Amino acid sequence: MTQLTTDQHERYARGLRALAAIDGDAGHKVIDSLAEIAPDFARYVIEFPFGDIYSRPGLDLRAREIATIAALTAMGNATPQLKVHIEAGLNVGLSRAEIIEIIMQMAVYAGFPAALNGLFAARDVFAARTASGQAPAA
Amino acid sequence: MTQLTTDQHERYARGLRALAAIDGDAGHKVIDSLAEIAPDFARYVIEFPFGDIYSRPGLDLRAREIATIAALTAMGNATPQLKVHIEAGLNVGLSRAEIIEIIMQMAVYAGFPAALNGLFAARDVFAARTASGQAPAA
Amino acid sequence: MTQLTTDQHERYARGLRALAAIDGDAGHKVIDSLAEIAPDFARYVIEFPFGDIYSRPGLDLRAREIATIAALTAMGNATPQLKVHIEAGLNVGLSRAEIIEIIMQMAVYAGFPAALNGLFAARDVFAARTASGQAPAA
Amino acid sequence: MTQLTTDQHERYARGLRALAAIDGDAGHKVIDSLAEIAPDFARYVIEFPFGDIYSRPGLDLRAREIATIAALTAMGNATPQLKVHIEAGLNVGLSRAEIIEIIMQMAVYAGFPAALNGLFAARDVFAARTASGQAPAA
Amino acid sequence: MTQLTTDQHERYARGLRALAAIDGDAGHKVIDSLAEIAPDFARYVIEFPFGDIYSRPGLDLRAREIATIAALTAMGNATPQLKVHIEAGLNVGLSRAEIIEIIMQMAVYAGFPAALNGLFAARDVFAARTASGQAPAA
Amino acid sequence: MTQLTTDQHERYARGLRALAAIDGDAGHKVIDSLAEIAPDFARYVIEFPFGDIYSRPGLDLRAREIATIAALTAMGNATPQLKVHIEAGLNVGLSRAEIIEIIMQMAVYAGFPAALNGLFAARDVFAARTASGQAPAA
Repeated sequence: MTQLTTDQHERYARGLRALAAIDGDAGHKVIDSLAEIAPDFARYVIEFPFGDIYSRPGLDLRAREIATIAALTAMGNATPQLKVHIEAGLNVGLSRAEIIEIIMQMAVYAGFPAALNGLFAARDVFAARTASGQAPAA
Repeated sequence: MTQLTTDQHERYARGLRALAAIDGDAGHKVIDSLAEIAPDFARYVIEFPFGDIYSRPGLDLRAREIATIAALTAMGNATPQLKVHIEAGLNVGLSRAEIIEIIMQMAVYAGFPAALNGLFAARDVFAARTASGQAPAA
Repeated sequence: MTQLTTDQHERYARGLRALAAIDGDAGHKVIDSLAEIAPDFARYVIEFPFGDIYSRPGLDLRAREIATIAALTAMGNATPQLKVHIEAGLNVGLSRAEIIEIIMQMAVYAGFPAALNGLFAARDVFAARTASGQAPAA
Repeated sequence: MTQLTTDQHERYARGLRALAAIDGDAGHKVIDSLAEIAPDFARYVIEFPFGDIYSRPGLDLRAREIATIAALTAMGNATPQLKVHIEAGLNVGLSRAEIIEIIMQMAVYAGFPAALNGLFAARDVFAARTASGQAPAA
Repeated sequence: MTQLTTDQHERYARGLRALAAIDGDAGHKVIDSLAEIAPDFARYVIEFPFGDIYSRPGLDLRAREIATIAALTAMGNATPQLKVHIEAGLNVGLSRAEIIEIIMQMAVYAGFPAALNGLFAARDVFAARTASGQAPAA
Repeated sequence: MTQLTTDQHERYARGLRALAAIDGDAGHKVIDSLAEIAPDFARYVIEFPFGDIYSRPGLDLRAREIATIAALTAMGNATPQLKVHIEAGLNVGLSRAEIIEIIMQMAVYAGFPAALNGLFAARDVFAARTASGQAPAA
């Protein structure tokens, strides 16, 4: 069993660092949007997904974002979060072309509509980044 | 538009090679199991997922299996295929520990039951490989 | 076996009463929106969910709305109906804070995106009620 | 609005006739299995799906079973009910080959694992019917 | 095993013909929308769903659209594609009333919210066709 | 923002107490089953769902189990976890009859197959408890 010496403050701080590294501004917007309705949930988002899971050393962030983009495309019912993670994928080193590959592959596992809707989400994210002057990664 | 010079025979042969590289014996068992009930579907499985998608150069097989293991864990309704792809992940270079990381991460996106059932599928695959004398990759 | 002495008119009338008690105006809007395209389906909505299920004595309406809000949040593909039932939950005595608790809990079973999207649906419903002069219940 | 002159007894009787026509023995087994734990639910199954929906004149039973086999294959989480409706499809005039076509098509909309698991369900149903002396319909 | 004499060009051409017969303009819009972001995926959409599946002789297009409308309604997370196939259903001979029957039936298998959201999608498609001067089929 | 004075040890201990109160032996079995394959995930199960969510004061355990039983029945792809929470529901004061009501209600939101499979899960749990000498709660 892992030792439980890390205290809650460290976990929260670690989560904040991971959130900034992965999601950039988009992550902070989600946290802020929760401040009024469910501030404790904002804390959980920082602590468990980012402080616990994304901070684990066994898999790099590039691999973790491949997994997340694939899962959210396949589930097909969380477009806002898929867009945040397409951004995150670009932030941690995936190219636009690689993200398109991941999403296309989901046609095999979740059907063509899930892949199509994932591709349209990617198109929107890419267009917004190009419009805001962020050069395409691929 | 991509040139369409590859003929159907080449696509089928390319799919068979990809299937062998990725799924090993497990893939052939699935194809054989379809021979009596839906032989055309066996051909489609070889042609589209393997001949078209997994044969594309833009993403290596390790990244593709990360995506597939993540998606099948998150969807939670295709345990036999998840097991085949946990095998496939090991075949293309993922370690046992990395596969566990991918599946654990799905708790964030699809809930703890999906991750738990994915972990139990991995435990079964790992145990069968250890029993058959295949050393753990991690 | 329950006696089948209730005739169809009574079932329909009972369903209308349950619909009014639970969904208020929102329920009637759904029924009206079906009048042109599928009037029989409007009748089924009144008869089976409301005349049969919600009218059963074995569970109070507060408990029934906890179940429905949880399920619709977890399924994640029926936002309009989730909003109607967040309203309904408030109508039958759940506080805003209790509804937030139910939705946050769904992060455990259906993942953080499902819970986030549920929280945003609740935020919209609460804001609309506050704007229309209905005091927050919590 | 449809006239509500049919009383509950007629609706239940109509549902029982539809259930017998569509599901044969399999339907009665489901109803019997509910008798101890949820007898009212057994009544609802007869009344709403069979007494209301399958008894409607606007679509023949062959078309209705195409719809149900497609949906249950695509959803992928209700194998026992899919098997009952593969039987039902055969009972109302679909051939084995047509059922295979419907299930294969679901690879496009719900992915290859959903179609594969549907095909394996069909294989089991067909084998059981052949074993019990019911000649294949195609 | 089916003979593999058809070459890729024939398969693509056959897919284009099926796409035009089934989806009319809506299909071409989807293909065009992919041209910039994922042109290979546009080709796959034409080849596998339309060139392979919808071109198979074992089930007529009317039956295939019943299956697709049912599945997309039940899955509930692909509204744009559901609308395209409600159009397609009308194109291949389903009446408006038959499409309503198929969607209503999904309440039994996927719940009332899925059926309601499917009915609202149908209402939108029917209204747009009536507005553009296409007479209702039923 | 909630103060972050609780350290990780307290959170883990609080989670263990909640797990024991809610799931009894079934919870410990799940934790033990993870010890070999993913011990960190066992810790996360204790910390986040039980230490964080179920330990929150805003909703009693009876209401929380209503939500969980509803969600797992509706999702339909996590039968082992549904059974654990049917047990949990009985442990925290729900009667057998109330659990049946919750599951039946899911026919409205997730379809009859989801409700049927939930009822069969409940039947199995109730039978096992009766067989082991635990008197029915209702």
